[in-house]
Amino acid sequence: MEPTTVAILGLGLIGGSLARDLAAAGHTVLAHDADGASTEAALGAGVLAGVLEPGLEGLAGADIVVLAVPGDAAEALLRRAQPHLQAARLVTDTGSTKRRIVDAALQAGLADRFVGAHPLAGDHRSGWAAARAGLFRGATVYLCPTPRTPAAATDLAERFWRGVGAVTVATGAAAHDRALAWSSHLPQVASSALALALRQADIAPADLGPGGRDATRLAASNVQLWTAIALENRDNLGPAIHALELRLAALRQAIADGDETRTAALLRAAAAWRDSAPAAR
Amino acid sequence: MEPTTVAILGLGLIGGSLARDLAAAGHTVLAHDADGASTEAALGAGVLAGVLEPGLEGLAGADIVVLAVPGDAAEALLRRAQPHLQAARLVTDTGSTKRRIVDAALQAGLADRFVGAHPLAGDHRSGWAAARAGLFRGATVYLCPTPRTPAAATDLAERFWRGVGAVTVATGAAAHDRALAWSSHLPQVASSALALALRQADIAPADLGPGGRDATRLAASNVQLWTAIALENRDNLGPAIHALELRLAALRQAIADGDETRTAALLRAAAAWRDSAPAAR
Repeated sequence: MEPTTVAILGLGLIGGSLARDLAAAGHTVLAHDADGASTEAALGAGVLAGVLEPGLEGLAGADIVVLAVPGDAAEALLRRAQPHLQAARLVTDTGSTKRRIVDAALQAGLADRFVGAHPLAGDHRSGWAAARAGLFRGATVYLCPTPRTPAAATDLAERFWRGVGAVTVATGAAAHDRALAWSSHLPQVASSALALALRQADIAPADLGPGGRDATRLAASNVQLWTAIALENRDNLGPAIHALELRLAALRQAIADGDETRTAALLRAAAAWRDSAPAAR
Repeated sequence: MEPTTVAILGLGLIGGSLARDLAAAGHTVLAHDADGASTEAALGAGVLAGVLEPGLEGLAGADIVVLAVPGDAAEALLRRAQPHLQAARLVTDTGSTKRRIVDAALQAGLADRFVGAHPLAGDHRSGWAAARAGLFRGATVYLCPTPRTPAAATDLAERFWRGVGAVTVATGAAAHDRALAWSSHLPQVASSALALALRQADIAPADLGPGGRDATRLAASNVQLWTAIALENRDNLGPAIHALELRLAALRQAIADGDETRTAALLRAAAAWRDSAPAAR
């Protein structure tokens, strides 16, 4: 993508990593963060060309605007930013759920320039301190244009995200939220529930082997972020959690029955599914 | 530990890694494996001083004997080995459950020299090809002496496992199996159940982010091994699985109710527990 001016609202793991990659690629990066320490650190690291004042008037000079704060905060930020987005060719975001922010953008009159995005690149760490170059290299980024999005905006969104190394996948916001309830939100809830069960049994994290540490790693994720995601996507997430409860009950029953054939068949189906994965990055 | 002769029965991930470390430390390593290709490869790698014939008569020349095959196979192997163990000062094993093998050793008249062991060092890979030097460095190894085990045997078991870098923890076989149902067997079942739920929803492993990949990694574990572990420890494992189902149901209900306070409190308790872990190795 040709060098341009990008404004990033929110310098956490995602926004901060994006800022690092964009600056390294020669773009002019402006940023705002409610926490002044983050913008100070990013300025000190030579990543930012400027810091936006809380009124966000400086957005008028940005070609591309990225909302990089958790879902519910993104909607409020979009309303604050809206008066200053006339010059922007693309407004995108990084939220883990897409229906509400896409609706909010349409209601804000941004149908011609908003392309919702969800980079599958977060982990259990957060904040500017966790931001790093290359976070999006090879990562999937879901893009959610609507039937009203002009091709020029979708194209620019694709070039923008591919510019930091991502693999873009176009989908609808509703289909995105349905699929992610399973592929992302359910593993998060499963990991948290496992942590709660172990805690209740007085097992310490130090008692776990490497596999148990892997299985509970997501439990350390940002609580506020995941509470918002779970509640926003609850219509999709509820049935996914229930399906996991049923699979656990099936395994528990096969094991309680001492049924080697049934237990092995369930574990084998799980292993065959997992082995169909390409080598983990 | 002074250089001695160690016989390893089973050259998989655990037995093979042990053979590599022991040979590097100057011990004479003999081995048997039902798969001739594994012993051939270990001979070729310069790890073995000799291969034991299927009759296991060669065990008579071993000072320390290690059963390094999965739980149910270990009992059969112990019976085959028993006539040739008169000269051994220590017989130990590497199984993930401890009650049955310790009972079997007592019944085989090995109370004076058997010390059950469980190295917390396995992962989802298996076989000689996965064996590597240093696998036990810093790993916990549970040792399960009985009230009838002489101090000399327990001491030798401790020196043996510490010699490959492990941190030994003494416990009873029953307490071990109860604790491991939670800390090891439950994460395994949880990961498999999550894989089954995702498979049923037509999610591919490639659709997962880094966190989902972590949470399902254990699902790829050896099916035969884990079926045996789950069935052997079913009296402890059943209640653990049920506790996880209840925690999932509690999260599902809080989310379905749109209850931000309750959802956040559950996720926060899980995160606080996980954050109490020392830095992952």
